[in-house]
Amino acid sequence: MTPRVPQQLALRRVPIDTSRENVVFLHAECAAFPGLGFRPLSKVQLSYDHHTAVGSLDIVRADWLGVNEVGVCEYMFQRLGVAEGTLVALSYPGILHSTNSIRRKLAGARLNRAEFDEIVRDIVSDRFSKVELTAFVCACAQNNLDRDEIVDLTLAMTGVGETLDWGGGMIVDKHCIGGIPGNRTSPIVVPILAAYGMKVPKTSSRAITSPAGTADTMEVFCNVELSLDRMREIVEKEGACLAWGGAIDLSPADDVIISVERPLNIDSQGQMIASILSKKKSAGSTHLLLDIPVGPTAKVRRMEVAASLRRQFEYVAKEIGLHIEVMISNGEQPVGRGVGPALEARDILAVLENREDAPSDLREHSLQLAGRALEFAEDIKGGEGYGVAREILRSGRALEKFQAIIEAQGRRNGRLQLGQYTFEIKSDCNGRVRRLDNFAIARLAKLAGAPLSRGAGVEVLRKLGDEVKQGEPLLRVYSGTPAESALAEDYATTEKTIIYCA
Amino acid sequence: MTPRVPQQLALRRVPIDTSRENVVFLHAECAAFPGLGFRPLSKVQLSYDHHTAVGSLDIVRADWLGVNEVGVCEYMFQRLGVAEGTLVALSYPGILHSTNSIRRKLAGARLNRAEFDEIVRDIVSDRFSKVELTAFVCACAQNNLDRDEIVDLTLAMTGVGETLDWGGGMIVDKHCIGGIPGNRTSPIVVPILAAYGMKVPKTSSRAITSPAGTADTMEVFCNVELSLDRMREIVEKEGACLAWGGAIDLSPADDVIISVERPLNIDSQGQMIASILSKKKSAGSTHLLLDIPVGPTAKVRRMEVAASLRRQFEYVAKEIGLHIEVMISNGEQPVGRGVGPALEARDILAVLENREDAPSDLREHSLQLAGRALEFAEDIKGGEGYGVAREILRSGRALEKFQAIIEAQGRRNGRLQLGQYTFEIKSDCNGRVRRLDNFAIARLAKLAGAPLSRGAGVEVLRKLGDEVKQGEPLLRVYSGTPAESALAEDYATTEKTIIYCA
Repeated sequence: MTPRVPQQLALRRVPIDTSRENVVFLHAECAAFPGLGFRPLSKVQLSYDHHTAVGSLDIVRADWLGVNEVGVCEYMFQRLGVAEGTLVALSYPGILHSTNSIRRKLAGARLNRAEFDEIVRDIVSDRFSKVELTAFVCACAQNNLDRDEIVDLTLAMTGVGETLDWGGGMIVDKHCIGGIPGNRTSPIVVPILAAYGMKVPKTSSRAITSPAGTADTMEVFCNVELSLDRMREIVEKEGACLAWGGAIDLSPADDVIISVERPLNIDSQGQMIASILSKKKSAGSTHLLLDIPVGPTAKVRRMEVAASLRRQFEYVAKEIGLHIEVMISNGEQPVGRGVGPALEARDILAVLENREDAPSDLREHSLQLAGRALEFAEDIKGGEGYGVAREILRSGRALEKFQAIIEAQGRRNGRLQLGQYTFEIKSDCNGRVRRLDNFAIARLAKLAGAPLSRGAGVEVLRKLGDEVKQGEPLLRVYSGTPAESALAEDYATTEKTIIYCA
Repeated sequence: MTPRVPQQLALRRVPIDTSRENVVFLHAECAAFPGLGFRPLSKVQLSYDHHTAVGSLDIVRADWLGVNEVGVCEYMFQRLGVAEGTLVALSYPGILHSTNSIRRKLAGARLNRAEFDEIVRDIVSDRFSKVELTAFVCACAQNNLDRDEIVDLTLAMTGVGETLDWGGGMIVDKHCIGGIPGNRTSPIVVPILAAYGMKVPKTSSRAITSPAGTADTMEVFCNVELSLDRMREIVEKEGACLAWGGAIDLSPADDVIISVERPLNIDSQGQMIASILSKKKSAGSTHLLLDIPVGPTAKVRRMEVAASLRRQFEYVAKEIGLHIEVMISNGEQPVGRGVGPALEARDILAVLENREDAPSDLREHSLQLAGRALEFAEDIKGGEGYGVAREILRSGRALEKFQAIIEAQGRRNGRLQLGQYTFEIKSDCNGRVRRLDNFAIARLAKLAGAPLSRGAGVEVLRKLGDEVKQGEPLLRVYSGTPAESALAEDYATTEKTIIYCA
């Protein structure tokens, strides 16, 4: 519907950081009220030329906003991309039809492609507030999407973002569904594949519900916010990159959805598949290796569920024209020693540098994955990939490629520093480690400040089956502030399932 | 968990109206950052003496907030109840355990009384943002609550609010589940019951998803925001009141929940039962007459569903010790002529004044309800209530009681004025009215500005089965502003299901 009764006001940047929510400010005595009848919580549309944005209205009674001005928060100001003082038109955003679809979905109905398209368009054009966004996430949770709905949601999410075209040839990608703290294999696998000569334009999310995403960890080493052009140049030169997907708008809907999934600590299977595959499709990938870890405290707890998830991934990938290889791996405990951006970065370097103290499980898992992905190449036979990967790592060619990628993306120095406030969780008996809870360790690392505080996290000093003596440290927790350290320690004191020895 | 590492800052009232959301403002250079590590979107707890409140953090980079101040929006300032300049402690709100329950509920688990208690406590202490609140509403939607969960949610919601004790005797209430525009029977039924001598301390909601709630319509006549003491005085004197439930905090959780249900246009059956019965229980009611309208465009569309809903209401009412009588009524079209606060107020007066042009369906439905409720009295036999009600209305005793209640609550003058911007929807053929869509008419009235704009709404000029001639007006739409009128007219032009003649 066309916006009606526009009204011109001078745009004013309001220096308030609302974190990913569009807020519009009008003075209580603004002339727009009698004419337009706006009220607090109303949605308001601003437009100038071809730029439009919808925000929630806050009413201001102070002299820092003029009665002929319309204020917008920092986030909205950036997205609007119009200079301060510009006369912008104010209007009703029209009727939000897609809430009907969300309501129907909550009541158990199927949605079609057109309905997903409408929802995704409304998300990326900021017409949803956190309320509608959360309702959509909840409506799609608990396996509420069938496989054809997931295909439609994937295509809808692919349709609104940028798309990369690499001009033909095999484009390889590797992805893990997550849930296992410290399982940071991409920064090891991608350089191995690129060193072999594969093209791997890797994009990753920031953490959704975990203490670190690959993008968070890579940011310890280098810039991860690459423009499309810059990403293309780097992949042209080095064969690979390790970038944040959100910065290049490959699936802009996804990053908005994540902003409500995070506080709820929620993941929806259908949305997970659509989120992953839409980004891969947009990035121009032709071949994807997907890692699904299974374990009692992993995202996927039983083999049957992993098998069903594998089938769904395979179905959707086929429908959207993506070659997929799914690997089901051991997810019974954290991988590596570190959990949190800087701690994981330290483990990655240790593996790439072939250091003796490098965590062997992170090394092995990375080689398994790299081996399978190398077998996408016509000249590597089934079963031979692992040996090739191991040789590339041993020879130092993987490290060399990793350093080249970091240089190309823009190296950051001195970011490996760990949080200065630490405490340890110690064994209360002589025996062996019997249980390590992925979820509780992730939570502990998050309370300690990860991923936003780069040096925060958990160091896992003992793994399942390791012998321990009473009083020996099992976990060490790092925080950047005393408050976060205290919060993590409160949790460690009350939550007994984190690590268990007997 | 006890809040940790408090930090003292001077409280500053920030004159921004955020409409029912707690927002805390800190300056980007506030000393709390290095110490506490707060970030945008963090939740922050303020405490002073026994007052605490949790809000979402916005970061400010402007000189209207000092670096040693903590700003709070208008809404939060009111709820905190502490003077500007007071030194308040800043802390983390601790871990929000109840999100675990919401996640489990979304995944299909049952929740117990303790879990509902925790959720409801978190809601009323403002620890939920709109994200958690929406997720809770969605998790309980689509008949996801079994009848014992509804009992537990009802008791949890009853437990956090004020409770009225009328010192024994029968306390009668009447309620409709809603969904039928113009079905404003309480202002007619309550005076009839009170005139007979029953005690009816009626509290109502404002509109959730409709163009007017009873509280919105009553506000056209008088003040509806009564304190507990004032309500008690009025009921003592007049036998009845017609107040807004939210103003007396009978079920404070409900009013917060409504704030997210409204933009989603969503109602959940379990939450509806808990919302209604918790308020009745808190209000000290002993006897409740409940109206469930059924029709093709009503909230309840089929008799089987109405019957199942009736059983759920009866089960929960019995468990919480409330005598209930359920009446299933005809909900195939709007009741009365007016839809929207002032238009409905006009209909109510016409019925109470026994005017010849009073809408007969509103009159009849009100008498049916009043008749059934009168039969709660020991001295009225089954089947005799209707006659008694009709006589009370005819004699003018109902009008007299209504006027007395209005005087007692505080009469408002000149509020019956209708919106000055009007348009009509006309018949495009000679024939009869075949269809009137409750939902579309409600939407039309809301787009026209109801309920916030009191004079806005829809006048239904022809009802189902009425003969019409081509060009004759069927509906008249009133708005207070040209923009709202234009928006409603856009809808009327594109949406053909509102009214249909053939």
